[in-house]
Amino acid sequence: MNNYKITIEYEGTNFVGWQRQNNGISIQQLIEDSIKKLSNQSVTIFGAGRTDAGVHAKGQVASFELENVLGTDTIRDGLNHYLRPYPVAILSTEKVGVDFNARFSAKLRWYEYKVINRRAPLTFQNNRVWCVFKSIDVEKIIKQSKSFLGKKDLSAFRSINCQSKSAIKSINSINIIQNDEEISFVISAKSFLHSQVRIMVGTLIDIGTNKLSKSITEIINLKNREYAGVTAPAYGLYLKSVDY
Amino acid sequence: MNNYKITIEYEGTNFVGWQRQNNGISIQQLIEDSIKKLSNQSVTIFGAGRTDAGVHAKGQVASFELENVLGTDTIRDGLNHYLRPYPVAILSTEKVGVDFNARFSAKLRWYEYKVINRRAPLTFQNNRVWCVFKSIDVEKIIKQSKSFLGKKDLSAFRSINCQSKSAIKSINSINIIQNDEEISFVISAKSFLHSQVRIMVGTLIDIGTNKLSKSITEIINLKNREYAGVTAPAYGLYLKSVDY
Repeated sequence: MNNYKITIEYEGTNFVGWQRQNNGISIQQLIEDSIKKLSNQSVTIFGAGRTDAGVHAKGQVASFELENVLGTDTIRDGLNHYLRPYPVAILSTEKVGVDFNARFSAKLRWYEYKVINRRAPLTFQNNRVWCVFKSIDVEKIIKQSKSFLGKKDLSAFRSINCQSKSAIKSINSINIIQNDEEISFVISAKSFLHSQVRIMVGTLIDIGTNKLSKSITEIINLKNREYAGVTAPAYGLYLKSVDY
Repeated sequence: MNNYKITIEYEGTNFVGWQRQNNGISIQQLIEDSIKKLSNQSVTIFGAGRTDAGVHAKGQVASFELENVLGTDTIRDGLNHYLRPYPVAILSTEKVGVDFNARFSAKLRWYEYKVINRRAPLTFQNNRVWCVFKSIDVEKIIKQSKSFLGKKDLSAFRSINCQSKSAIKSINSINIIQNDEEISFVISAKSFLHSQVRIMVGTLIDIGTNKLSKSITEIINLKNREYAGVTAPAYGLYLKSVDY
């Protein structure tokens, strides 16, 4: 068997998410169908991050096995041909060892959440960032964000639909970068709970706009979703890259 | 009379350009109609740059006079209300002296042209940047671009439809910035010939992909449009800001 790793970019607005579902088009289905057209083989691909409906990716990673050897450029260009006109592009393809699995071999997943803080409505960035109209105290949220670092019980920061057995997760890094009206949250961890990044960002924004008065540490210690802030909208979230 | 200056952002894809025309919707028309709805006055607005169909703006500037005094926040928020759902937003509004005219008072216009150099098709940046598949020698075009600086006869770099009497223009600055696959051209001058920035960028790209062997200085000296390169597509161009 020949094992391949592909890196994928997609604009998630009009998809039901990464994973195959019956109620609409998923990225996984589009890529599996394209592999079938290119190689005449039916494969199941493994994705590093199961992004939800509306969530984007700049560097999703997936892997799959083929019976026949195909050149990596042939795979990239061929899949991109069949993926048109969808906003899904294979950025690169690599041949990898048989033990590699994009989902299970991942060491660190990097997500970026983009906020624009201004009064004017969006033009270019519609469906690509969360536009917050109220003024945000960025210094305050940078300071608060550091309380997420390390191994914590994040029960307050998981969706009520989250099926993970344990809510204990380790945040490896969290960086908040302000560039004029743009505020970018870059967060890395081995794995995340359902909607975790969106609830973390929504809670920090609620703190930065004085809608919430509790600190991140207090909210973590309460271990209850109702004390955290709003779930930030899916369309501001990007799966940025994956470390192996 | 009360004179106002507004700064405008727009995604130009579905417009006939800045200027009012009979064959479709222009930015000028949308803003003049919104001012009429807000103030009940019919005004003509003056724009700093008459961007073509498909060209975008991050900081277009326009001015107009009103008989009544309106608060600057009222103008910004009111116009943004009437401009929905079009991808046109008023970023800020200022009250200015009676002598100010956004078109005639402009000292320097800044344009940015965005290129992405990669094999994979675009997803997020469709209609927002020019995707060049062939590898570009960026060092070479940075070096060549410096030949545009200063006062030159740019007859080779104007559209055949250009109605300007003189082709002599002074380029104030040209900076080419590479960031991974993105190449950004930032060019400033008091004024430009028709399609000048797009022909300058198209010619530099043709030089950087070895499609053209003449140097920029040689092409300038030939003073003939047919020796310059391709006109880069409108959708990669942004009116970035205007100095007064």
